[in-house]
Amino acid sequence: MGKRKISKASQVKESPLFWPARLEGSTLWVLDETLIPAKVKYLPVKNVRQAVQVIRQMKTRAFGQFLVVLSTFLLELHRSKGFSQKKLLFKIDRVAEELNQSRPTFPFSEVTSLVVRWAAQAAEQKMDVAAFVEKCIQGYLYGIRQRRWERVRKIAVLLRNGDSVLTHCNVSGELAMAAVLCRQKRKKIQFFATETRPYFQGAKLTCWELKKAGVDVTLIADNAVATVMADRMVNKVIVGSDRNCANGDFANKIGTYQIAVLAREFGIPFYVLTQPSSKIRSGKDIPIEMRDEKEILIYQGKRVFASGVKGLYPGFDVVPHDYISKAVPINVN
Amino acid sequence: MGKRKISKASQVKESPLFWPARLEGSTLWVLDETLIPAKVKYLPVKNVRQAVQVIRQMKTRAFGQFLVVLSTFLLELHRSKGFSQKKLLFKIDRVAEELNQSRPTFPFSEVTSLVVRWAAQAAEQKMDVAAFVEKCIQGYLYGIRQRRWERVRKIAVLLRNGDSVLTHCNVSGELAMAAVLCRQKRKKIQFFATETRPYFQGAKLTCWELKKAGVDVTLIADNAVATVMADRMVNKVIVGSDRNCANGDFANKIGTYQIAVLAREFGIPFYVLTQPSSKIRSGKDIPIEMRDEKEILIYQGKRVFASGVKGLYPGFDVVPHDYISKAVPINVN
Repeated sequence: MGKRKISKASQVKESPLFWPARLEGSTLWVLDETLIPAKVKYLPVKNVRQAVQVIRQMKTRAFGQFLVVLSTFLLELHRSKGFSQKKLLFKIDRVAEELNQSRPTFPFSEVTSLVVRWAAQAAEQKMDVAAFVEKCIQGYLYGIRQRRWERVRKIAVLLRNGDSVLTHCNVSGELAMAAVLCRQKRKKIQFFATETRPYFQGAKLTCWELKKAGVDVTLIADNAVATVMADRMVNKVIVGSDRNCANGDFANKIGTYQIAVLAREFGIPFYVLTQPSSKIRSGKDIPIEMRDEKEILIYQGKRVFASGVKGLYPGFDVVPHDYISKAVPINVN
Repeated sequence: MGKRKISKASQVKESPLFWPARLEGSTLWVLDETLIPAKVKYLPVKNVRQAVQVIRQMKTRAFGQFLVVLSTFLLELHRSKGFSQKKLLFKIDRVAEELNQSRPTFPFSEVTSLVVRWAAQAAEQKMDVAAFVEKCIQGYLYGIRQRRWERVRKIAVLLRNGDSVLTHCNVSGELAMAAVLCRQKRKKIQFFATETRPYFQGAKLTCWELKKAGVDVTLIADNAVATVMADRMVNKVIVGSDRNCANGDFANKIGTYQIAVLAREFGIPFYVLTQPSSKIRSGKDIPIEMRDEKEILIYQGKRVFASGVKGLYPGFDVVPHDYISKAVPINVN
């Protein structure tokens, strides 16, 4: 996995969702994913307060949140020029704490604790804390980008000419870019994307980025999965994962579990893009985030359904590992 | 099954969706199901032209369409006082034709041909055509109401104290009324209703009528079916059917098939309310209505998803009979 490979793959344009935040000077420009596909707008983030805001308002999601969290330390280091080492360490701790609390159910601390550790390490070894932490974060992000590109290539290898792939929710650019790599190799691939209620990430993000990349995509209701499988309109399923367990179970956007069950029923290979981790033993140890029932009872600011009705909205579900045909891990160095 | 039973069951209030059109003098008042739950409004229909309009605009659906079709003959007979017998027969034929053409994919002719036959029979036997046809239609509707009430009671017997029932789309009042019968017998039943994208019949109609009947109901996204089953939040599934085959296969609202597969996977009994018929041999002989892709790409009049994306919206799917735990047929006399 060297630089040569990276530059080669870079001939494929990155999907905006692949790297949805960019640091320019003292501003982090964060793609507002809630406006897609109507508008492609980047929000300026200048400090941790604004970063917490874009995360809380879910302007960014999935990999984007992770990217914003790491980049926010760079912003705050930039704003702390001239700070004493002690003051800087204190500040890094405080920034980590604020980010951790932005969404209680999201394990940001796994990332922020890395940064806190780098800062402590630099201080211990009497190095320039700001410079060292910045280098570590940038190196870390560079590594992630390399490994994500590598997985894009893995997906492209997995796809065969004529494949029709069902996907759910959004995997932040990787499928769209893999599809473009396939096109370069003259492999024709088409996609079916579920709407992914209630947030419509499939309809709004996946369809948009696939279309933008010139890839053939058809939107279906989440209800039509059995039909497209029974009628052999798809021959592969590829989904992402939010959390991975040591035994291979994984959590992903609500609806993934039933697609996995259906794929097995209809004999269709079910692939999952994973970030291998052994921190959680098995699926039953993953806490399921129950989101506010308003998110299912209200649409575009209006309560659209009968009052007095309760809503139940588990944010994700857990797929037992025996439904997985093949995991496509991101390499862990 | 006599009048006594009917009047007894009638102590339970009918859901507006159970009998969504009522004839008053020369006007048929048709429940506008597209406005529920925001408004409960009945549209006046005075002739076949207006009837075709409410059917085409899908103001009424499922059993309601069938009821409007039959009632329209009563309206037109009312408007034909003084017609010669020959003119009346001609008119009945023309009304049948117009109704048949209102929605090409819906088999209205099965119902309209009955009326045409009654008229021919009356003419042959030198009876008063108008009086005979009216009596036949009213007797037929009366029989249907009796048999639907009977099925409501069957469903109530099927339900046990403590049951939690998952349902999909809308079964025109029968579940809500069965739940009220259960309450009278001190059986506590709760429901989970799927949204039923893209039309939201589950969210808008089923939740509304269950809530209106004072029944405990929780709305879930179509994506959450595997979760509520895996977590044992439901212990029964009850769905309706649009068309039934001789071998037991049935067609119903898109999404029913995957719920059936999931029910079997999780060992949850799957019940279907059927109208037994031997006209179609098996599921593969049922033509699947492919609806306009706009219905999935556009929401409340606005195109909400990326342009250039295709949509695929099969209106229903076919469930093979081996997924059915038990069919609850409407009695056929």
